[in-house]
Amino acid sequence: MGRWEPNSRERLAAAALELYGERGFEQTTVAEIAQRAGLTERTFFRHYADKREVLFHGAAALEQRFVQAVAAAPGAAAPMDAVAAGLEAVAEVFICLREQSRRRQAVIASNAELRERELIKLASLSAALADALRRRGVQDPAASLTAEAGIAVFKIAFERWVAPEERRELSPVMRECLRELRTAVAADGDRDR
Amino acid sequence: MGRWEPNSRERLAAAALELYGERGFEQTTVAEIAQRAGLTERTFFRHYADKREVLFHGAAALEQRFVQAVAAAPGAAAPMDAVAAGLEAVAEVFICLREQSRRRQAVIASNAELRERELIKLASLSAALADALRRRGVQDPAASLTAEAGIAVFKIAFERWVAPEERRELSPVMRECLRELRTAVAADGDRDR
Repeated sequence: MGRWEPNSRERLAAAALELYGERGFEQTTVAEIAQRAGLTERTFFRHYADKREVLFHGAAALEQRFVQAVAAAPGAAAPMDAVAAGLEAVAEVFICLREQSRRRQAVIASNAELRERELIKLASLSAALADALRRRGVQDPAASLTAEAGIAVFKIAFERWVAPEERRELSPVMRECLRELRTAVAADGDRDR
Repeated sequence: MGRWEPNSRERLAAAALELYGERGFEQTTVAEIAQRAGLTERTFFRHYADKREVLFHGAAALEQRFVQAVAAAPGAAAPMDAVAAGLEAVAEVFICLREQSRRRQAVIASNAELRERELIKLASLSAALADALRRRGVQDPAASLTAEAGIAVFKIAFERWVAPEERRELSPVMRECLRELRTAVAADGDRDR
């Protein structure tokens, strides 16, 4: 106890996802997670506040990465293109994380409280994105609407990327979803009126 | 007790919104709501399961109206135009309800649990909308993305409509937001590449 354990955070996260998948999120205890990882409960609580936080720990870093990429997009970039740059930056994080993401998604889908928490995470991401767009000089309601559209692309692309049959990386799936959204939204019946 | 009270449902809802605004949602009891409405607690529980349900009671009817209008849109209508027909149908419900909607929005904004519940309501609305689009023959991911975009327009337009300075009805605010979304999403940097 107390001595340094290499990769203890990652080992705990992997053990937790395994156990949530095997026994269900509710049935898994922190003691079991620590044991599976070959670590102590005390080490668990040095890294995570509770067993739910294992699933949402990356959210703040993801939000920061997304927002920074939007801010760093060329000044002349259209709002949706700045958001697309953010989506690309976020997609890079998930390279090599498909199996882990699949497990996480399955756990979240099976628990109402976790689904709610995921919705809150996405709403927070959308609000941060809208702020980033406002700092680029985008007015409302365009800032909020573009942010919501960007989060829709992120959410739907992520769901497709973790589907069993999907082989492509997250980045091309996101680009496909963005193209599909552009096509669907641009198909404008008002032209005929 | 037990005798028929005219408009008891609406009187209870109005009393509840008043009290939530005056004292806060947490501090208000069902007994106080019934008293303010001049009715009994028993009458309250004939209409609502708890004090939270007063705020979300209309969600199922709203979803049904939205989905039916999408289904009833002309077969040749583009997916986003079918969603626009749904938004118009929903906007009609809120004519004459701005003050009540303002109060409700303020109560929800002030309470984390209610904000979560509102997010869940919108996610359910989005899923129902995507299903309605699939029944029109729209493929995924376009169905999910168009539904999410439609809910984004609904959410942002609603927030603008209840803002203190807003004088227009919900319908033109929704149309403005849909136009803004179309412009933001269509401004496509890919054209230059």
